[in-house]
Amino acid sequence: MTLNLQELQASLDNSPFHQMFKMSVFEANFEAQRLSIRQQFTSTVERLAGTKQYHGGAIASLIDITGDYALFYVLGFGVATINFRVDYLRPAIDTDLLAVAKVRRAGKTVGVVDIDVTDNCLRLVAVGRGCYSTRAG
Amino acid sequence: MTLNLQELQASLDNSPFHQMFKMSVFEANFEAQRLSIRQQFTSTVERLAGTKQYHGGAIASLIDITGDYALFYVLGFGVATINFRVDYLRPAIDTDLLAVAKVRRAGKTVGVVDIDVTDNCLRLVAVGRGCYSTRAG
Amino acid sequence: MTLNLQELQASLDNSPFHQMFKMSVFEANFEAQRLSIRQQFTSTVERLAGTKQYHGGAIASLIDITGDYALFYVLGFGVATINFRVDYLRPAIDTDLLAVAKVRRAGKTVGVVDIDVTDNCLRLVAVGRGCYSTRAG
Amino acid sequence: MTLNLQELQASLDNSPFHQMFKMSVFEANFEAQRLSIRQQFTSTVERLAGTKQYHGGAIASLIDITGDYALFYVLGFGVATINFRVDYLRPAIDTDLLAVAKVRRAGKTVGVVDIDVTDNCLRLVAVGRGCYSTRAG
Repeated sequence: MTLNLQELQASLDNSPFHQMFKMSVFEANFEAQRLSIRQQFTSTVERLAGTKQYHGGAIASLIDITGDYALFYVLGFGVATINFRVDYLRPAIDTDLLAVAKVRRAGKTVGVVDIDVTDNCLRLVAVGRGCYSTRAG
Repeated sequence: MTLNLQELQASLDNSPFHQMFKMSVFEANFEAQRLSIRQQFTSTVERLAGTKQYHGGAIASLIDITGDYALFYVLGFGVATINFRVDYLRPAIDTDLLAVAKVRRAGKTVGVVDIDVTDNCLRLVAVGRGCYSTRAG
Repeated sequence: MTLNLQELQASLDNSPFHQMFKMSVFEANFEAQRLSIRQQFTSTVERLAGTKQYHGGAIASLIDITGDYALFYVLGFGVATINFRVDYLRPAIDTDLLAVAKVRRAGKTVGVVDIDVTDNCLRLVAVGRGCYSTRAG
Repeated sequence: MTLNLQELQASLDNSPFHQMFKMSVFEANFEAQRLSIRQQFTSTVERLAGTKQYHGGAIASLIDITGDYALFYVLGFGVATINFRVDYLRPAIDTDLLAVAKVRRAGKTVGVVDIDVTDNCLRLVAVGRGCYSTRAG
């Protein structure tokens, strides 16, 4: 009954906002309560033309989305973000990004997810922590 | 020497990431250390096609950008986001958004900014709090 | 039916953790959805002996408590903290503190409160933002 | 040259605020950039008399302190908290707590630390994320 990568990807693709970015579900591990999304560099994420540097808003969006999908995968239904925090650790320049979301708690009303974002050199670019409403519709 | 609205808008427009959204500098008040950006609904912010509901990532981006520009305006130079937090209070559907950023502290190393986002009915949609590195280049 | 200052103070005093600090409910304004707690300097809040500087943990506790009591006052029942954030803006030395909590949203499941902490010179010492579970027991 | 457990403990004990709690440095691992502090239950942390439940402020303080000491240990000098976030996952009742802080980034100006707090049954009670100013005095 668990969603597979194709179903998760189809859901991801079904959002006009997501379509501005090249994001693909990279891994989903139910036992580890972990889900990863890879983002390819596109000009739509660029902070300043020609710099190939990611805008912070693109990284924040990737973090929120990956945390959200981790709970969607673990719980089997969509959840709404209550709040989240992003800490930027290094600029991300001319690189793909890998966001790995780990569910820390999927309670009856609230879920908490940690999201690490790394670049092609496996350097930590940003860390996120999201809190989501997990009450089933 | 303070930047005027045209200069702030030109800087805002000079980012490929920003160009995906229809954002305009609405107000800048130096005495109040406040800067506001208005965002028009566009299909690029939509969470699911046809719903006209803003994706959380679009709102988070608006919050980060408005906080950043408030310090840019107050300090006269660009700053980098250290971290920020977003709390979502209500869905934003088929509406423009107004993000009002108020500088709470512009210290020698760190600046802290509060950002309120309201919809066309003046309802609070989200609140943000950003921490920025204010050390001059 | 709204709790008055004496009732709020009695509840505040009824906690061993609170009793380590000298905290008093200073103001409660239902229309403004605002509640304030004053904290007197005591040696129990001191970071290093003799410095009279508040430890960050004492300020964080004051913020969490004041946010919690603001929702308690507005809703009429106790709430649990889901998460909160504290930004420290200035050291607080040899001063009382006033924490002013403003409810930004008291929804059916989640409440969000902003808390400003100022010193005797009305300087902003820290700002907090708390998210609380508002579902009635 | 690295500080040993005795030196870290002596520093920890040298604060009136810390003395209200029974905290001991449990482990310090330089390679892993990790430091842990154990807190014993005392009546000073109690939310309501007789419940043996930790007050959130006591847990938040433990998180801030452990994150701070992790950077102190890694860098060799004391750092100031810029901001931090706490997410509460479960009540902590009649138990010791173990806070494990892992440095995620110790940059030239800013350090970011993750702190996990578990109870005697190894259940996650709370997670923290702190941002500290790492510029040497």
